[in-house]
Amino acid sequence: MQTVLNKVNLAEKFSQFQEYWRPKIVGELNDVCVKLVKLKGEFVWHLHESEDELFLVVKGRLVIKLRDGEIVLNEGEFAILPHGVEHCPVAEDEAQVILLEPKTTLNTGNVRNERTVEAEWI
Amino acid sequence: MQTVLNKVNLAEKFSQFQEYWRPKIVGELNDVCVKLVKLKGEFVWHLHESEDELFLVVKGRLVIKLRDGEIVLNEGEFAILPHGVEHCPVAEDEAQVILLEPKTTLNTGNVRNERTVEAEWI
Repeated sequence: MQTVLNKVNLAEKFSQFQEYWRPKIVGELNDVCVKLVKLKGEFVWHLHESEDELFLVVKGRLVIKLRDGEIVLNEGEFAILPHGVEHCPVAEDEAQVILLEPKTTLNTGNVRNERTVEAEWI
Repeated sequence: MQTVLNKVNLAEKFSQFQEYWRPKIVGELNDVCVKLVKLKGEFVWHLHESEDELFLVVKGRLVIKLRDGEIVLNEGEFAILPHGVEHCPVAEDEAQVILLEPKTTLNTGNVRNERTVEAEWI
């Protein structure tokens, strides 16, 4: 049986969707999901009870607002939000972002509202 | 107490080391390590008994040889090697790569030889 391993081209995957704030799953390793998301505007304040979350900016600029400060991420920069830290992502213009987070992670964390979505594979 | 979150600039981190095949840890989330590595030449055949491993090429070109094929990764492309799959990374010219893998992962997997190193934080 031949080993079948797919590779993922980030630009090609990002070109497959346009909607904002709806993460798409592009890979899984162990208990972690690799997701792509396009962001524009302001999200909702939330936290993840037990999941750390990595944001890597591929295009654009992402501000992660914290209750006592903010992190500004430009292209080629990432930050890891530890679980339990309330945050609100904001992107003035479109940002393309890679997310790494446990498979159990809900996009709105401890909040459920109209922005809550289940990530789907692309 | 203020939330202290560092961000990581990939280019800046890659500029901090030059040696090949010695992964540097730049982040941790849950049980996963984010590592940066520069590759040039051919590594050793190995596998990881229980850890999946993601290779994302930031610069250059990486070939992951498998026993029955290969994957060629260019800039902006990634692949996930499932645990148990024997592989040998090769880069004709220097490649800069982000690795994601469980904290328990040894660079040479099931093999221990002169290429085996413990990853260090930068």
